[in-house]
Amino acid sequence: MTYCCAIKVNDGLIFAGDTRTSAGVDDVRTYNKVHVFEFPGDRVFVLLSAGNLATTQAVIAQIRRDLDEPIVPMSLRLARYMYDAAEYVGMLSVNAQKTVSSQTQYSSVDLRTTFILGGQIQGEEPSIYMIYPEGNCIASSPETPFLQIGEHKYGKPILDRVIKPEVSLEDAARCALVSIDSTMRSNISVGPPIDLAVVPKDALQVTHKLRLDIDTPLFARIRDAWGRQLAASFRNLPKFDWEAPPVQGNLLDDEAPAA
Amino acid sequence: MTYCCAIKVNDGLIFAGDTRTSAGVDDVRTYNKVHVFEFPGDRVFVLLSAGNLATTQAVIAQIRRDLDEPIVPMSLRLARYMYDAAEYVGMLSVNAQKTVSSQTQYSSVDLRTTFILGGQIQGEEPSIYMIYPEGNCIASSPETPFLQIGEHKYGKPILDRVIKPEVSLEDAARCALVSIDSTMRSNISVGPPIDLAVVPKDALQVTHKLRLDIDTPLFARIRDAWGRQLAASFRNLPKFDWEAPPVQGNLLDDEAPAA
Repeated sequence: MTYCCAIKVNDGLIFAGDTRTSAGVDDVRTYNKVHVFEFPGDRVFVLLSAGNLATTQAVIAQIRRDLDEPIVPMSLRLARYMYDAAEYVGMLSVNAQKTVSSQTQYSSVDLRTTFILGGQIQGEEPSIYMIYPEGNCIASSPETPFLQIGEHKYGKPILDRVIKPEVSLEDAARCALVSIDSTMRSNISVGPPIDLAVVPKDALQVTHKLRLDIDTPLFARIRDAWGRQLAASFRNLPKFDWEAPPVQGNLLDDEAPAA
Repeated sequence: MTYCCAIKVNDGLIFAGDTRTSAGVDDVRTYNKVHVFEFPGDRVFVLLSAGNLATTQAVIAQIRRDLDEPIVPMSLRLARYMYDAAEYVGMLSVNAQKTVSSQTQYSSVDLRTTFILGGQIQGEEPSIYMIYPEGNCIASSPETPFLQIGEHKYGKPILDRVIKPEVSLEDAARCALVSIDSTMRSNISVGPPIDLAVVPKDALQVTHKLRLDIDTPLFARIRDAWGRQLAASFRNLPKFDWEAPPVQGNLLDDEAPAA
């Protein structure tokens, strides 16, 4: 399994993903799922993947091949709009699945991979797209400015509650880390280290790319601080009417007693 | 869909469930999924259900029938241990499914229901059991002192982070409400109002049973306070090393700067 998310806020884009790949619990490996394609000053793309690892690698390899060829009909360098780039990745994904399934028509292996492609092309707005295994794609919306692939349910509530377009890029990054941390606690097929990429608006490059393990000081401190603050938040929630009155210093002292 | 959870802390038991039942998005109804069976001073049971509504109602009806009969081999009143009561409910569930499926062997309707049965029998510890559609059951554990049925993933991270045996009964109740609220925000097939039942240890009765709608003042205030405190918690998380130093008043001022 996998969990990756991409967030679009006014200040730019955040990409995060775990690194655990498993073909069953007895075949667990670590793979990068956050792939960066940078053309500094002109365009930047980050590709996240969840699904069949061979399909993913076939797509990545073809993207690189197309970038090296002097004459190709389409590549990440040639795409005029982000949507074109997303459609291009979708086409590569469908082709990769077709090639393998035509060779192994009696196999029941699931060849599907879902991608998130995000980034910015000079003169365009930053954007993020989810690319389905069928090759079609959708963008994020202002109301739900994030996309998730893989084991997405455990980590969605915190994104739902926190992520709005006006949230700072760094708060969005911390929210992505908390979202992945929540998922790792609930599903062991999502595992550390976590990769994080930061693409500020109009930077046209990845300004920060971090790999955070459980014991990386920053990540350990975020996990610890988040746990403590959640617990403190619970102590400050409104009381039931049968409870003793809130203790002194309660953040909600100024509110009316629970009805 | 449905989402129900039961929590066991040192001070007692909490039960909570949504009330939305749907046979497709065009057939949505409200049903109580938190069923109380009280024998004050002797024993108390709360039964939560997720799955086929007809199976659920067949089981509830049989439980009541067995309580009204003067001579029966087993009933909630006769169970010696909580485990016996859970096995009894499992048997009723299997029987209810068998009866219907023998009448409709060509139907593809899913007759399965999963239950959580919790409560306390005088002289025994309070406990909670998950009863599978197959009739077998498991108890909660000290390490994971809660059980969930239905759409459980969205609401699990907050339970994972907050619920420990030493948490107060009321904090556990607030956590259950937040867990259901998170689930309702992500899955419209889980919907209000929410039912909440509180069973303190050795009370041998449900001391509080609340039905909370979105606009019930207490629930509205918990939702609002939780949202604000989560946002505040994010502002107080450790900073990345490229960020400006924390502003004055930061709760984590006493920590070393982010490494």
